[in-house]
Amino acid sequence: MKVGILLAGCGVFDGAEIHEATLTLYFLDKAGVETVIMAPNIKQKDVINHLTGEPMNEERNVLVEAARIARGNIKDINDVKAEDIDALIMPGGYGVAKNFSNFLEKGAEADVIPEVKRLLVDMFKAGKPIGAICISPVIVAAALREAKPTVTIGTDIDVAKAIEDMGARHLACPVNEMVVDEENKIVTTPAYMLGKTIKDVAEGIEKLVNKVIELAKK
Amino acid sequence: MKVGILLAGCGVFDGAEIHEATLTLYFLDKAGVETVIMAPNIKQKDVINHLTGEPMNEERNVLVEAARIARGNIKDINDVKAEDIDALIMPGGYGVAKNFSNFLEKGAEADVIPEVKRLLVDMFKAGKPIGAICISPVIVAAALREAKPTVTIGTDIDVAKAIEDMGARHLACPVNEMVVDEENKIVTTPAYMLGKTIKDVAEGIEKLVNKVIELAKK
Repeated sequence: MKVGILLAGCGVFDGAEIHEATLTLYFLDKAGVETVIMAPNIKQKDVINHLTGEPMNEERNVLVEAARIARGNIKDINDVKAEDIDALIMPGGYGVAKNFSNFLEKGAEADVIPEVKRLLVDMFKAGKPIGAICISPVIVAAALREAKPTVTIGTDIDVAKAIEDMGARHLACPVNEMVVDEENKIVTTPAYMLGKTIKDVAEGIEKLVNKVIELAKK
Repeated sequence: MKVGILLAGCGVFDGAEIHEATLTLYFLDKAGVETVIMAPNIKQKDVINHLTGEPMNEERNVLVEAARIARGNIKDINDVKAEDIDALIMPGGYGVAKNFSNFLEKGAEADVIPEVKRLLVDMFKAGKPIGAICISPVIVAAALREAKPTVTIGTDIDVAKAIEDMGARHLACPVNEMVVDEENKIVTTPAYMLGKTIKDVAEGIEKLVNKVIELAKK
């Protein structure tokens, strides 16, 4: 079995959340599953100084930065087809919202960038499971509006409302649990949308990873 | 109990190895231990494009980049004293060798930068344990030459010889194991110096973390 991991860069404030991405890789490897790490070859929306929280006056590329988490072993998402993988997992981080969509500006009306939308739609049509961590369920809900999936981003009222305005159903969920939409094969967990420490986040991600693998076997 | 984590940036080829750093944080949190993440406020030796392996024509700061792994919760190493923490763990990555020392140029004659050497020497003098992962034992051996510690970096013959030329003793060790120098309270594991996948690396790091905690309690 091969599971794709879609990264939005490298760092919680402008890219992929590093702990969520690493723990996803860890639990997949522990389960004996091969991984295909990927990212879109696009410019980051912004570069945030993670020490100060302030924007930096420079440009970085999502694929090049995501390669740091992948130790260089990463593909351009345009080179990955739904038929190449048995499931797809998206770790979170602000970069998911900022680099994969215009969710911060447009809320429920958000569009997903074509590179990411294409793979999500193809995975869904192929009946292959999608796992979405942290803020990523927003992208799944925006890309798969017709499916009206049931997802969680934890307990954030504003983001939950935007998700419901997209036509999806939102369920509140604690950090160490997940929400499973068996029909649509979509699994979600709040991670750092709610979690205070890495141990709590890991608990939810481990459950998500194992559920995605189980759904991929069906 | 508080354990310090010393990072050399963010990314295996020019900074801290991301999986090793994240897994260290995970296993410490799982053990109920508080962490103090730190890095020196210095320029990186270089910036490597992790997709191509080639140098990039830009500058980055070790503390600012390490803050990505720490989610912003990080200190300048100059603001951390040995009395503030009960143990110190150093994840690996090429950045440890390149940003903390001139090991790549000088081998066994390498110097360790004063910011890092000061804390290592103070921890050792205070009888507090040090855990060193991957290439980091080189820095420990170079900073604590008089202690002649017993360490491992796996099975790399050239690096092992340089460590022995520094006066330390090197023991070969598999990726899922560790070497414990009980007298000097120094614990080391090869991680990605030897490991092929994150699961193997995690096994050695979990053992190291738990041994460091045990030694800190003595």
